[in-house]
Amino acid sequence: MNVQLDNQGRLRHFLTTEGLPRPLLEQILDTAESFTGVIGKSVKKVPLLRGRTVINLFFEPSTRTRTTFELAATRLSADVLNINVAVSSQSKGESLLDMLRNLEAMQCDAFVVRHADSGTAEFIARHAQPGISVLNAGDGRHAHPTQAMLDMFTIRQHKGSFEPLRVAIVGDILHSRVARSQIHALNGLGAGEVRVIAPRTLLPRDVETLGVRVFHDMQSGLRDVDVVMMLRLQRERMTGALLPSEGEYFRLYGLTEEKLAVAHPEAIIMHPGPINRGVEMNSAVADGPRSVILQQVTNGVAVRMALMSMLLGRPGSGEDA
Amino acid sequence: MNVQLDNQGRLRHFLTTEGLPRPLLEQILDTAESFTGVIGKSVKKVPLLRGRTVINLFFEPSTRTRTTFELAATRLSADVLNINVAVSSQSKGESLLDMLRNLEAMQCDAFVVRHADSGTAEFIARHAQPGISVLNAGDGRHAHPTQAMLDMFTIRQHKGSFEPLRVAIVGDILHSRVARSQIHALNGLGAGEVRVIAPRTLLPRDVETLGVRVFHDMQSGLRDVDVVMMLRLQRERMTGALLPSEGEYFRLYGLTEEKLAVAHPEAIIMHPGPINRGVEMNSAVADGPRSVILQQVTNGVAVRMALMSMLLGRPGSGEDA
Amino acid sequence: MNVQLDNQGRLRHFLTTEGLPRPLLEQILDTAESFTGVIGKSVKKVPLLRGRTVINLFFEPSTRTRTTFELAATRLSADVLNINVAVSSQSKGESLLDMLRNLEAMQCDAFVVRHADSGTAEFIARHAQPGISVLNAGDGRHAHPTQAMLDMFTIRQHKGSFEPLRVAIVGDILHSRVARSQIHALNGLGAGEVRVIAPRTLLPRDVETLGVRVFHDMQSGLRDVDVVMMLRLQRERMTGALLPSEGEYFRLYGLTEEKLAVAHPEAIIMHPGPINRGVEMNSAVADGPRSVILQQVTNGVAVRMALMSMLLGRPGSGEDA
Repeated sequence: MNVQLDNQGRLRHFLTTEGLPRPLLEQILDTAESFTGVIGKSVKKVPLLRGRTVINLFFEPSTRTRTTFELAATRLSADVLNINVAVSSQSKGESLLDMLRNLEAMQCDAFVVRHADSGTAEFIARHAQPGISVLNAGDGRHAHPTQAMLDMFTIRQHKGSFEPLRVAIVGDILHSRVARSQIHALNGLGAGEVRVIAPRTLLPRDVETLGVRVFHDMQSGLRDVDVVMMLRLQRERMTGALLPSEGEYFRLYGLTEEKLAVAHPEAIIMHPGPINRGVEMNSAVADGPRSVILQQVTNGVAVRMALMSMLLGRPGSGEDA
Repeated sequence: MNVQLDNQGRLRHFLTTEGLPRPLLEQILDTAESFTGVIGKSVKKVPLLRGRTVINLFFEPSTRTRTTFELAATRLSADVLNINVAVSSQSKGESLLDMLRNLEAMQCDAFVVRHADSGTAEFIARHAQPGISVLNAGDGRHAHPTQAMLDMFTIRQHKGSFEPLRVAIVGDILHSRVARSQIHALNGLGAGEVRVIAPRTLLPRDVETLGVRVFHDMQSGLRDVDVVMMLRLQRERMTGALLPSEGEYFRLYGLTEEKLAVAHPEAIIMHPGPINRGVEMNSAVADGPRSVILQQVTNGVAVRMALMSMLLGRPGSGEDA
Repeated sequence: MNVQLDNQGRLRHFLTTEGLPRPLLEQILDTAESFTGVIGKSVKKVPLLRGRTVINLFFEPSTRTRTTFELAATRLSADVLNINVAVSSQSKGESLLDMLRNLEAMQCDAFVVRHADSGTAEFIARHAQPGISVLNAGDGRHAHPTQAMLDMFTIRQHKGSFEPLRVAIVGDILHSRVARSQIHALNGLGAGEVRVIAPRTLLPRDVETLGVRVFHDMQSGLRDVDVVMMLRLQRERMTGALLPSEGEYFRLYGLTEEKLAVAHPEAIIMHPGPINRGVEMNSAVADGPRSVILQQVTNGVAVRMALMSMLLGRPGSGEDA
């Protein structure tokens, strides 16, 4: 049984896009749609989660992701507590499970978890008390499912339906939790064709089994695609043997208007941010008319509001936890 | 005159459990009782302190204690400001009193103070403006009175009344602000017998004058006790001459089911957390049926809500401060 | 065209006191006046900015200034997000403009910006989206306009009108953003005479062009003044060649009752805090009957509430940003 779903098939935690039924993925997008109205207004607030407590439990610093979760919870009127674990209880030698039990005992309703180790969010979800929901804000190389869902939302906003789409994910697939979550979400939503474009050193072994077509050059990989999803390159990879220089990487895989010439004329360009300009893409593309990168950020708040409201907004959730 | 009370004997600051009249200690427990309903609900919030400002003034980091105070204030609808003084004004050479005057001038209603030096919370209370209340969140080796009151609340929850109880406090009494506050609270509430169990090196001189019976071994100290309150062991003590090895400490003073055999069969086990498993107690005890350790955490929020509401919720408090 | 004003002459950003029309400066003071009632009450909160998001974007740490802005926003019922940039996105190499675009995309309404480089707040204001307001919380040596306005508010509170006043600003004018903003505000409000008192090494070249009379000794500079505004001395200046010892500085420029003897008998004493006691002034002056230093702090919250309400409280502001 999937730990993410309750016995009526409703979302109970949000840990990964892998294996989620298509209607549920679509429900997330539809719910996010309903919140885009809220955040465009002057009073960007609904009382849906008033009196509920959301704990941002970040074992890995990430101002950007933490900020969007905090905004999402705040705009649902929840109370938010930020706990940066690197500088707190772990220094006292407290185990993850003891920390979890303690925070639960303070009667919180949800944990937003970010951790450098794959599987931590699921570990916490498996051990959490019945009334508590866990949202994965990124675990190791495993998954970053809210990022993937905001990407899906942005694609649907621009393209309507997923079936006819050719989507290319470009860059360091090997180390990317974002890519894994995107691939599962795209396939779950019935995207026509999911491609990955990367050098062999940056691809996981047996990547085809994820349901993607593999390309090693941009010329063939970008041909006729409707969506180009660039990945962020961790600069520390440069110093290892995995990558040539930044200049060489940009020459081969950096997105430019020239390389985009083979894509569909209305292809949209995405990036999870922050962009390394001149590495993953140049500024002409990043700031060009086909870039939807800032819309992704805006949609990130709506999608996280949607997930929190689905997890916490049910009658009876959070009670007697 | 006790700085904690106003001239009508009502609580004005909460600095120590020492010398508090029994009716006032009981009023704190009764008020906390009334808040346990609030925090068990889905909407864990009452508007009692709306528009009031509580400042967490932490000169010593403590995520756990800070978090429970922040939750307590938030659930009373107060606004909370966290100031980590280690990294702020003190680096500019500002004196404690100047900092206090400045925060007061911003019209706050309460300070929650944590400091490595004994007496700091009282110092601040003595110098605070009339409308402002101070809550001691731990000062040096002196006192940690909210911890003691949540312990008392938990004991009363399980045992009803204090008179017939034998209570043992086990561990490093010498360095423990928690132990001092527990002893004063237990005696103030009329507990039948308060014991301390510790090696001679970890007991203050003349500890008997606090109103406790002293034991140096668990076998005799735990006999027939109704409540066992374990203290957290600071691991840095291990490196000094005060303690043998962790293994030796656990052998002599670590709580196990075997050592508990001499206690009352319905004895409850308490710990202020975080537990050093395998040092103060083993997991069989920590997670066993007699452990009320997580209930202590839950009660910590209710007790802090109670104290804040008693200090700040009076008509007229906080005005024209 | 001044970036601070919209095309109807209303305040759109608040970056500097330089060049602001007198009616607008007075409107800020009048609006602050209306908020002093709010913060003196027990429920220190008005719903004016409910559902609006204010981001404290601090590239330079400052607990005190950050705290007053956070309190001001909270008391207007806005949601506040603190971003300490030193430890966040900049470590990922994100450019200031990319960071700005991202935070804007999260649909915030205002940035409160503190930065060690002069001009950063204006840079952000020039690049911000139409619906977003920027408040300068101190940029390099350039300006600290909210500090200056709370000073003006405090002066008006005590002296009524600016025309007849002689005001002396004492200390390190050269490195002081506070002094620059004070001089522009005083001249903009029509103060009778603005003086600066400082050693030659701590005065900007051509300081007279700012509209001040220059004095190098306290005896002549303080004669008949109605207001004495002391500046904070950065202790690191001491180690350079710019200043003699602290003792020597205090002997020459430190404020004492003796030096004040030549001032108007009802002169008020101001300081932006935190005070270096025994350097800029002794405690007899800092805590004496003519000191209004703590009133400045209280007024700081009201003035920042005023500015936020003027910038964000307009019908239509913050929409479709």
